[in-house]
This record gives sequence, structure tokens and C-alpha cells, in this order.
Amino acid sequence: MTSTKPGMRRVAMVGAGMVPFGEHFDKGWDELVQRAFLAAVGSVDKGLDRREIEAGFIGACRPGLHGQQTQGGVSLSGTIGLLGMPASRIENGCPTGSETVRIGAMAVASRWHDLVLVVGYEKMRDATVEGLLGIALEGHPIHNRGETALNHFAPQARAHMETYGTTAEQMALVSVKNHANGSHDPYAHHKKPVTLDEVMASPLICDPLRLLDCCPQTDGAAAVLLAGEEVVDRYTDNPVWLWGAGNGTDTYWMHEKETLTSFPATKLAAERAYAMAGVGPTDIEMVELHDCFTIMEIISSEDLGLTEPGKGGQLVESGDTMIGGRLPINPSGGLLSKGHPLGASGVAQIVEIFWQLRGDVAAQDAARQVEFRRGLALQHNAGGKAISNSVVTIWGQDKP
Amino acid sequence: MTSTKPGMRRVAMVGAGMVPFGEHFDKGWDELVQRAFLAAVGSVDKGLDRREIEAGFIGACRPGLHGQQTQGGVSLSGTIGLLGMPASRIENGCPTGSETVRIGAMAVASRWHDLVLVVGYEKMRDATVEGLLGIALEGHPIHNRGETALNHFAPQARAHMETYGTTAEQMALVSVKNHANGSHDPYAHHKKPVTLDEVMASPLICDPLRLLDCCPQTDGAAAVLLAGEEVVDRYTDNPVWLWGAGNGTDTYWMHEKETLTSFPATKLAAERAYAMAGVGPTDIEMVELHDCFTIMEIISSEDLGLTEPGKGGQLVESGDTMIGGRLPINPSGGLLSKGHPLGASGVAQIVEIFWQLRGDVAAQDAARQVEFRRGLALQHNAGGKAISNSVVTIWGQDKP
Repeated sequence: MTSTKPGMRRVAMVGAGMVPFGEHFDKGWDELVQRAFLAAVGSVDKGLDRREIEAGFIGACRPGLHGQQTQGGVSLSGTIGLLGMPASRIENGCPTGSETVRIGAMAVASRWHDLVLVVGYEKMRDATVEGLLGIALEGHPIHNRGETALNHFAPQARAHMETYGTTAEQMALVSVKNHANGSHDPYAHHKKPVTLDEVMASPLICDPLRLLDCCPQTDGAAAVLLAGEEVVDRYTDNPVWLWGAGNGTDTYWMHEKETLTSFPATKLAAERAYAMAGVGPTDIEMVELHDCFTIMEIISSEDLGLTEPGKGGQLVESGDTMIGGRLPINPSGGLLSKGHPLGASGVAQIVEIFWQLRGDVAAQDAARQVEFRRGLALQHNAGGKAISNSVVTIWGQDKP
Repeated sequence: MTSTKPGMRRVAMVGAGMVPFGEHFDKGWDELVQRAFLAAVGSVDKGLDRREIEAGFIGACRPGLHGQQTQGGVSLSGTIGLLGMPASRIENGCPTGSETVRIGAMAVASRWHDLVLVVGYEKMRDATVEGLLGIALEGHPIHNRGETALNHFAPQARAHMETYGTTAEQMALVSVKNHANGSHDPYAHHKKPVTLDEVMASPLICDPLRLLDCCPQTDGAAAVLLAGEEVVDRYTDNPVWLWGAGNGTDTYWMHEKETLTSFPATKLAAERAYAMAGVGPTDIEMVELHDCFTIMEIISSEDLGLTEPGKGGQLVESGDTMIGGRLPINPSGGLLSKGHPLGASGVAQIVEIFWQLRGDVAAQDAARQVEFRRGLALQHNAGGKAISNSVVTIWGQDKP
């Protein structure tokens, strides 16, 4: 076993939980946060008095849009019955959730706090008309209005097809695989499996991406509890250890991109996470990656070093990334099936890793449980305008 | 000398800089950030290649409103010529700036990074009509629209007057003192001194607060460089050490407040910062506190333990808090004179402490330089809806 950065206090996840992703028109953001929090607290094997939590970090991309008071982290403390607790809000585009976990881990690794809570949430479904008008009006008067995510992903998909011969069928297979996985995930938004024909026949949204190449709009919240190595035993004999985490950035102007067939932010984040963990792609046995669109799983599997550049389409075609395959990718169903509530998505990927590495998934639906030998899993987010930010985290059954 | 938390790596400020606060209609947010960054880099005594900076944290409250792409921290990396650098955005209401410094310090204290950049900024003056409409429309449909800061501060001012006999003249003296200090600060927005009569004759905005009891709307940016103890010597022989930092929260509903004469969030943040620093209020020799309104300086001087509850009015009246007095408060001019560009304010307070503790102020305007014996200074922010969040940091000339 290797080590995290020299002299760094090791950090473990001792609890994790989430709400079922989906449409939560009947719940405010605060109820989603409360429920994710209670699920995480309830998952702590040896129990936890919530007052032992020393600080909270909340990840949310557009809280004002969804009816939260935009008051930083403070709204977290009262919502979970811990008024007074230090609290901060982190916002980092689509990697908001995993970046909030990375910063929560710094709070523990620094010995500033022994036990911290990280919650990510987003309500995407019941944004008010006024809020949507607000987001449409805000921002740069020339560059930032009317852009959709497809503006970035469709040209990259086309470039990948032209450069490497990636096919629409290979992209569709990502959707088929992830929806099949999601059908075994009680927390997934879209639990219905889809066939290759159904994906290929779904409406074209932005050529070459079809409806079933796109993740849904989803409400959700997820929470994890991070503890310093000396106190882990108080909470569980079965923790999940943080081995590494990295953040990388890239230009957010499409016209400045040096490549349309990879995402440099992901490559940097992965390089940093692998270096900190002291492991490489071949050591990883399970991946939760950012499949907001099917092409994104293909390109990300290359950027994360899980296959050669240009071979991501063949990787999904090979079946290796199915549950039971050589390297299961997105056993939770991924963003495509489980859903993508921005601030919650990265935290929920890490919750899935908590369950998988501990073997907890077997109790939910044994068909989703991944088998481990060495016990290492990787999580990945990427996004923001023109996919300019990425976060990668690596977790293990054993202490790093 | 005492210590920070046991086993925690010590953190020092090795560079700091800011743009002059004011109206910057001719500069975008990115130019303000660049200029603050360059000022901080330029202040490093032994020089700094910007590529040595390992990570960046940017504090901004409402970046979308001011034309920044709301893409988390990523916009920082490219703006300062460090594309690829890990970057995150922190948002914590009015304490956004100092909370971003607290989190930047965690990144160093954890040994995750050796040298990090923290930038805070806000453009308050040229928010677009569309952006203002956006903020007016966003948020909770019942509780979060049409509220101003005065909704919170005016009732607290009235309660403090009724409970403790604090007078309008005492509040006005805060404005007189801070504007006098600001007249010696080349970075202050409002550099014109004001008299007691002028404050008392200024228009009533929200009884009992008058125009000159209120801070202005200001554009600004400020930046600091934080280094781990082993690498500090590479950059300077005159660093400013972080002794302690705390964050505290309170309810953001006025109807839930247990007191209208103090701010529990500040008390908690201060208690935590003092405990970490191993010092108390009587050890502090200079304070930059959150005087968004004059009553806030009076109440905060009590909440920070600098005087007894109810004695904040008498403290300013005594002259003790003037430069040259027993305990100078807001030698920079404070938010009242220097200005309050939300995300920048806390970072700029810490920049002032960097300059004061190093003796750099003498070169700007000797009338503003505070004399130190032990060499400890305290910074304080509080805010968010109903002043529900506070951050306090403590800095020293010597290693903690």
C-alpha cells in the first residue's frame, strides 16, 4: 500500500446516504437535504450523535433558482438541527458535489476538524418561471445567454466520430448499459431498461446526440461523513478511505480549445488524483464517471486512462464495463439513468462507491454489487461551460 | 507562544494585494481579479513565479449578476494565466472573502498544497438591469424578495439603543472615526473625512440609521498568497502567520432570534478562532471588523469580547479604537469608508492586516500605521440573511 501526500492525515468516509433521485415536487430543497443527512447519519455502523459533527460543507450550483436562500452554507446548519455549526457553500459548476467532498476532506486532513458533513443537492424540476427568467437574464451580456450543454457536447461527439470512427451505436450502448444498471438501483430516477433500437430511434436532440444519449433533469440530495484516521474506529470497522483527489481546469471558450476529442480538465484532475493515491488506471476496479451524455462516458474513459485515446467506443462495445465485466463503469446507472442534480451528482457517485466498496449494494439488489480484489474505485465529474472543470477522487477498502 | 491545533501544519501569508476600491465601470470582474492577483504576486519579497501557485480559491457572492460566467472557480485559472490550476469557488454571504481564506488555509494546513492563492471580488456598481431583475425574481417566493440589509440592522440598532442606552451620536462617531482612517488609505472608496454634524444631518435611511451610518456600494478585488511553514522562507523573511480561524452560524429568520442586541454567529466564530489561536481578546492589538453599518461595529466589538455587552458605544466614544488608541478598530477605514464589495471585503481586511503587521502601511501613509507590541491582529466578517454567518481570523507577526 502506498500513501497519500507525505505527512497528510488520512481521511475516511464513515457514513453515506442519499434520497432517491427523481421528481420531488412535494419536497423543498431543505427536506431533501435533511433526508440525505439522516440517511448518512443512519448508515454509521456504530451510531453517531449529530452533535459530534464539527463542520458542514454544502454543494449547490444554483440554490437561488430553486428557492433556497442564497446565504452560503448557513442554511445547512439550521436545516439539520445543528444551528451554530460552521458551514460553507462550494460551487464549482457540474463538479460541485465532488469538489465539496474534496474541500471537506481538506478540513479533516488539516486536523481542523475530526468529523465533517458534506451534502450536495439540487432541485432541477420545479425551478420557478421567475427563477428561470433570472438565470436567462443574468450573466455576460454577449457570451453567456442561450447556451445549452449540447452546444459543447454535440460538436465533441461529432469530432470523436470523425477522428476515431466512434459510432452512434457505440454511444447508444453506453445508454443501454447504464439504464440496465439503473434498473437495479432503487435510488435511480429512470429505472426502465432501454434497448439499442430504442436509443437509436429516440428523437434527435442535437446531431448526433439523441434523447436517450442525454441525462434527465432530476431533483436530489446526497451526503457523506468524513472522519480523521484517529477517530474512524468510533464510527465503523468498515470505512472507505480517501486515497487521492484532484481538480483540473481548462479554458471555458470553445474557440480556445486545443482539442475536441478529449477534455484536458479531466486529464489533469485524474493525473493529480492518481499521483496522490500512488496508483494508476490499471489498479482501479470500479468507476463512477460523469456520463451527462453518452459521448462523455466514451471520452472520459479515455481521459481517465481506462483505455487508449479513441478506444472508448470499443471499450463499451466489449462489455468490459458492464457489471461483472473487467471494469464496471457506472454501476449506479450513472447520470444517464440515475439522474444529474448538479450539486448532488458527485456526492451521490461517492455514496455509490461507499456502498460498493463495503458490499452494501448486495442488500439493495445483488445484481448491482461489484466484486473487488484490491478494493479501489474512482469517481469523476466534469463540466462547467465548455467542460472547463473536473474533479476526480479515488477511494479504497484499505487504508492508503 | 501557543500553537494552532495539535499536529496542524502552520500557514503563513507571504503576499497580499488589492485594487483600490471604488467605482470600476471601466474594468470587468476579470481585470479586477487580475490586478489584485498581480498586486499580491508583486508583494512577495523574494519574488514568485506564478507557476509555483498550486491551487486557487475564489470568493464571489453573486458572480452571475456581475457578468462573470457562473462556472465555479474555473474562471480564475485562465484569468490569471494559470489554465489547468485547480480552482474552486466559495460563497458564504457577506463573510465570503474570509471564508475563502479559511478554506485556502485548510488546503495548505492539510499539506494538500504548499502555496495557494485566494482571491475575493465583487462588482457592485454596474450590475445590469437584467441581472438585478434576475436577483429580484430568484429565490423563495415568499421570504426572500424585497428584503434589504436595513431590515435586519435597523431593528437591532433600535434594540441596542433601548436596552443599553446607545445613542445616535455614538453610532455617528463610528462613521467619523472610520472615514478619518479611510482618508489615509489610498485603497479606500470614500476618502473624504466626515464630521459628527455631517453624519447626524445625513438623510435618515431606515430609522435610526442615516446615510452615513451605511457603507457604500463598491467594486473591488483583493488577493492573498498562503504558504505552508516549510516553504515560507522561499518567499519572505517577513510573513504574517495564521493563528486561528473560526466560522459560526445562526438562524436566518428574524422571528427566531433569541436576541436583537448581539450576533450569536460572531460570538461562535470568535470563540473558535480564539481557541485555535490560544489567545483572548486582550491579546489583540488591532481589529478589522465588519462595519457595514455603524451599529455593526458597536455590537461586533462586544460580540468579539473587545468590550462588555452594551459598552460598544462607550468604546468608540472613548477614543480607544482610533489609530494611536489602545485598540485601533478599522484602521483601513472599514467597510464604511473603504467600501464593501462582498466577496472582496474579507480578503481586503486580511490584506490590511498583512500590511499593518509587516509595517508596510508606513510607506503608504504613516498616519495609518498601527504600532504593535505582541503583534496580533483580528479580522471579522458577519452577514448573510439576518446576520446568520460569521468568520473570524487571527494573525500574528510571530509563528503561532
